[in-house]
Amino acid sequence: MNNPWNNRRPSARPPRATPVTRPVAPAAATGGGGRGGDELRLFGLNAVLAAFAARPDALRKLYLLEARIPRLQPVLKWCVANRVGYRVVEDGDLNKLAGTTHHEGVVADVQRAPVLALDAWLQQLPQGPVLALWLDGVGNPHNLGAILRSAAHFGVGALLLPDASSLAISGAAARVAEGGAEAVPLVRLPPSSQALQQLRSAGFGLAATLVSGGDDVFNAALPQRLVYVMGAESEGMDRGLAAQCDLQVSIAGTGAVESLNVASATAVLLAQWARLHRH
Amino acid sequence: MNNPWNNRRPSARPPRATPVTRPVAPAAATGGGGRGGDELRLFGLNAVLAAFAARPDALRKLYLLEARIPRLQPVLKWCVANRVGYRVVEDGDLNKLAGTTHHEGVVADVQRAPVLALDAWLQQLPQGPVLALWLDGVGNPHNLGAILRSAAHFGVGALLLPDASSLAISGAAARVAEGGAEAVPLVRLPPSSQALQQLRSAGFGLAATLVSGGDDVFNAALPQRLVYVMGAESEGMDRGLAAQCDLQVSIAGTGAVESLNVASATAVLLAQWARLHRH
Repeated sequence: MNNPWNNRRPSARPPRATPVTRPVAPAAATGGGGRGGDELRLFGLNAVLAAFAARPDALRKLYLLEARIPRLQPVLKWCVANRVGYRVVEDGDLNKLAGTTHHEGVVADVQRAPVLALDAWLQQLPQGPVLALWLDGVGNPHNLGAILRSAAHFGVGALLLPDASSLAISGAAARVAEGGAEAVPLVRLPPSSQALQQLRSAGFGLAATLVSGGDDVFNAALPQRLVYVMGAESEGMDRGLAAQCDLQVSIAGTGAVESLNVASATAVLLAQWARLHRH
Repeated sequence: MNNPWNNRRPSARPPRATPVTRPVAPAAATGGGGRGGDELRLFGLNAVLAAFAARPDALRKLYLLEARIPRLQPVLKWCVANRVGYRVVEDGDLNKLAGTTHHEGVVADVQRAPVLALDAWLQQLPQGPVLALWLDGVGNPHNLGAILRSAAHFGVGALLLPDASSLAISGAAARVAEGGAEAVPLVRLPPSSQALQQLRSAGFGLAATLVSGGDDVFNAALPQRLVYVMGAESEGMDRGLAAQCDLQVSIAGTGAVESLNVASATAVLLAQWARLHRH
């Protein structure tokens, strides 16, 4: 199959002068929005810029509107220097490539960041305060993206994924994260009992987060090395796992709604830890 | 025009026995998702149940899946007793009526809750701690919905809308709010300078919320009667208005992302006030 991306030698002229306008059918044919295996289709300006800033070697292909050339000049220069294919396309092409109109004028195929093993992550941790999030079932990409954005803002050390979790960063989640997906490593947990033991050996306390019935998080003694365990949007977190945690916390409220949105709750919980251990 | 809803006498039999299966074309033809004027098309179980609990007289029409009859039994009984039309329909009908698949098996047309004038709202306020949110441009319905859900959770007294704001609760926002839209009244502000004067006369301090450069909100002396002024998703809040506020606050972070999502930021800010004045 003829692949216009392979063996394509980028022009030596400045990127501004090389808008390529061939149709994007080969890439669009992959189905817009998702990439299998080790590749991720990113879209959204901050998502693409953050991936480029953190891992330029991960960039495989870039598609952009002509109007985005000035803002993406450093990326385009990198593409030329490193023989990474880029293509100036129309808005409709980006809609197809991203599978959404929320692409902000740029789509990039990038190699996924590696998912770390728990012991590898623990080994390279600094002493002192560290906060991590254990995601016990969050599935909505907008919630995952908002959680990543807040996690990056508050300096969360990792997103911990249960061994059986199929959760992975999608293009939609990365866009909503506004670059935050590059700042927070993903860590794959071993089975729960082993994960709890390893985290405790590394000095972490675990806090189950409950919609109601837990200790008020604003009065809780949150340890400086803390893992918040966040449950799924609808069911909340696994009760067996919650019982094994060192703390059970809730965000006190009026009861006018059953609970906060999981991304809003995460922001509140992260802020509370940061208030105690970063100020 | 023949309207099957007018003059329709509901069956005196129990609701469970009256699934009506005529096509829903007349309602679907209104364009799914939005209702003009004083009516709002709600969808989502908690949104509909909360509206019914708060304002049963506001219910105009109800559409539901057969599988939702048990959960909505009290609403159906009300419909029968008060001659409000309801109809058991198929999933595809609800998709058209709601303009989305996120209807959770129920769609309801309801009269909108009234928007209060500022002085009317101030007159009926209790003494002591009151928190309000001034929305200076939030436009995304998912953000508005998430803000309403958090506002209901933390007992916010009102959402204050600038005089020129076109913001209104949409069905999508109400669904995301999970019932929170019914717990937080909307208040229409007069022009800014008059609004500031009236709010200050009622003992409120105003806190501008800035992405960066404000005082750290975790160290700020937040008054017990407080209005947080929240800016638009992309531009942030109006600088002139920010300068007129009594406080300028920011949520300190790592800088790994430019800012928090406006709904996440709102949750953090509300939690911080609630921690100081509700605990």
